[in-house]
Amino acid sequence: MTQAGSGLSRRALIGLGLGAAAAGVAVGAGAGSAAGVAVGRARQQETAASVYDFFGIHQAGITTPVQDHMHFAAFDMMARTTRDDLIELLQDWSYAASRMTQGLDVSATGAVGGSPQAPPDDTGEALGLSASGLTITFGFGPTLFETVEGEDRYGIAARQPASLAALPPFLGDDLDPAASGGDLCVQACADDPQVAVHAVRNLSRIAFGRARLRWSQLGFGRTSRTTSDQETPRNLFGYKDGTANILADDTDALDAWVWASETNWMAGGTYLVARKIAMLVETWDRVRLAEQDRIVGRDKAEGAPLSGGDEFAAPDFSATVDGTDAIDPDSHVRLAHPETNDGIRILRRGYNYVDGNDALGRLDAGLFFLSFQRDPQQFVTLQKRLSTDLMLEYVRHIGSGVWAVPPGAEPGSYVGAPLFA
Amino acid sequence: MTQAGSGLSRRALIGLGLGAAAAGVAVGAGAGSAAGVAVGRARQQETAASVYDFFGIHQAGITTPVQDHMHFAAFDMMARTTRDDLIELLQDWSYAASRMTQGLDVSATGAVGGSPQAPPDDTGEALGLSASGLTITFGFGPTLFETVEGEDRYGIAARQPASLAALPPFLGDDLDPAASGGDLCVQACADDPQVAVHAVRNLSRIAFGRARLRWSQLGFGRTSRTTSDQETPRNLFGYKDGTANILADDTDALDAWVWASETNWMAGGTYLVARKIAMLVETWDRVRLAEQDRIVGRDKAEGAPLSGGDEFAAPDFSATVDGTDAIDPDSHVRLAHPETNDGIRILRRGYNYVDGNDALGRLDAGLFFLSFQRDPQQFVTLQKRLSTDLMLEYVRHIGSGVWAVPPGAEPGSYVGAPLFA
Repeated sequence: MTQAGSGLSRRALIGLGLGAAAAGVAVGAGAGSAAGVAVGRARQQETAASVYDFFGIHQAGITTPVQDHMHFAAFDMMARTTRDDLIELLQDWSYAASRMTQGLDVSATGAVGGSPQAPPDDTGEALGLSASGLTITFGFGPTLFETVEGEDRYGIAARQPASLAALPPFLGDDLDPAASGGDLCVQACADDPQVAVHAVRNLSRIAFGRARLRWSQLGFGRTSRTTSDQETPRNLFGYKDGTANILADDTDALDAWVWASETNWMAGGTYLVARKIAMLVETWDRVRLAEQDRIVGRDKAEGAPLSGGDEFAAPDFSATVDGTDAIDPDSHVRLAHPETNDGIRILRRGYNYVDGNDALGRLDAGLFFLSFQRDPQQFVTLQKRLSTDLMLEYVRHIGSGVWAVPPGAEPGSYVGAPLFA
Repeated sequence: MTQAGSGLSRRALIGLGLGAAAAGVAVGAGAGSAAGVAVGRARQQETAASVYDFFGIHQAGITTPVQDHMHFAAFDMMARTTRDDLIELLQDWSYAASRMTQGLDVSATGAVGGSPQAPPDDTGEALGLSASGLTITFGFGPTLFETVEGEDRYGIAARQPASLAALPPFLGDDLDPAASGGDLCVQACADDPQVAVHAVRNLSRIAFGRARLRWSQLGFGRTSRTTSDQETPRNLFGYKDGTANILADDTDALDAWVWASETNWMAGGTYLVARKIAMLVETWDRVRLAEQDRIVGRDKAEGAPLSGGDEFAAPDFSATVDGTDAIDPDSHVRLAHPETNDGIRILRRGYNYVDGNDALGRLDAGLFFLSFQRDPQQFVTLQKRLSTDLMLEYVRHIGSGVWAVPPGAEPGSYVGAPLFA
């Protein structure tokens, strides 16, 4: 079943991918459709809009400056699919991602350049929109390598990273299987939600007959920063979140804590943990300010640690006020802090979410936590430490997943190619 | 129960509302919290950010240039609430809206300026964000005037507008009561979703004990335009939507079709219809381009009517190509066009939505349709005409509501005051 192109074989798509990478946006701007309309969205691209390469040593969307919006999607491979199906899906996805991230339609004929007698390759809702900083990041879940029944569907079980395993249960978990796991994941981030949604929708369409969307999540209001000129945003508890995040230019920290140490097919890759964390905002909002500050360990106004200084001051966990710890030992900032966890750090890249409300009128809202680390154990260690977190009373982990994020694709190749070499 | 302010009576809040309106953003910038931090978000307001008055002849959020994001919420009054409860809720809401739309916290003490021993008035997630063009628009549903059991809870049944009644059933309706109706509605639109969410959350909090959130919906990618310099956006079928919308500067059309003709408490008001329209995007995406164009009646690339010309050319429903109608008689554009409907027009202000996906991997996505009209019968007439719409096969109306939108509040007063005079 050829969904990705009408009249284009998958191999041809990959061939075009090479051309698209080499020629950049000129591919879209140069081609013309039957109707005389320039194909692709590049022609209306604002010069100020950010455009990130899809190809590279690492995948984009990890150290890329955090965009404003996210559509995250988890997919399951369909029954009776083969190793070739998986490879071709990754090839088709890589080609489509290499185009969409440049502000182009999903294929050369796109939304309006194909035959009027065929369904368009591209669904069209991003026509006229710029690349909007779109990044598309792919990940491989433990079940892709070996199903829970122990089946090696794609002949890759022997290459499953030792550190890639389902996360252990944590105190306070209330996981919904319908918002957890997945053989594959796609993180699409952009400054325009319509561009991120367009990416996931078209990747889902391309996957038709091979992989099926398992669950997906929209997010807004990034809750971290990855560059020092980004202001620290606030989560739905009203507190700054991500002050001490690993920044994109801190190459030492990235090497120490984010990029995988493997020298095999994962070299240049990383591991992604997603946690959908429902926040009981109505309950939180009834807590007095001083207690909110105590739980977080920072002040609400500036995000400064309660031991003093400004937002970026290092917390002093030994500081006391009137004989009491300035920062509560069970505060969130202390338990999550590297100092409490043998120096362990992670790169966070989460978003706020609101999915409407429940029958009692409470907002169905929270944090879609995303972190990248060289080993999922970093997250496991931190999350176990948070078992006495004062904040635990006000949050519920309702979704969870872990994926190996392979290195970036080389131009003309596809994400994950070294895994199948 | 006083949720809106710690130590502030509701009457005092209204008094402050006057001051806030007169002094504008200076209220926030001038006051200081106990911690020496300027209260309110205005201090970090970008000068380029749009700020719209809450007070005025008409409510904001109708002819205001359509913002990028929406959080819409419907509320039900709680059991055993009185006329005074309703009035005070509207007063508290008006005060809060008058502040938040200026980029200020919900009250003078706000998120961090109150007593540390009390819960903050403001939930804080919009601290540091600009007004972001926020508008908050309130509406009164038929059930506010008289319950379905015929009860006149607030002594306003006699003043219910003759044209405000539950919408009749339409062909293809598949309405979910949990996404329909509501005694009150709040349309919060902003260029930053976090600002819109903050507004609904804080209004919901203020309503505590008086009204309860019934349902709410987030939307993005406005599907209409209200000023001639806004580009026409695309809906999730990939087509431009809202080309022929009533524009904010077309005062003749606004007077003829949008502003209510009543000379009573509704003078300067309008009527709002909301329809949550699920779009079967996967099915649509399998339709050949020529057929998509035929269903819509416009071409996908430019949004031009199939009778020729550019996007803004008037459709010519008598034009033929090879003896066939250029625009199908059952196309969406023809059936919804004023020419087919005795000149009837409405002001549309809808948004795209994506609420994740269903168990089969299909996106739970569509259009949150919003229209303003002087009489809901305008919408009823158009929607009945659409009973033979070719597009009907690809959409399901799953949510619905109608509300009287009272005129704007006078400075120092509150939305709906003339209803209770």
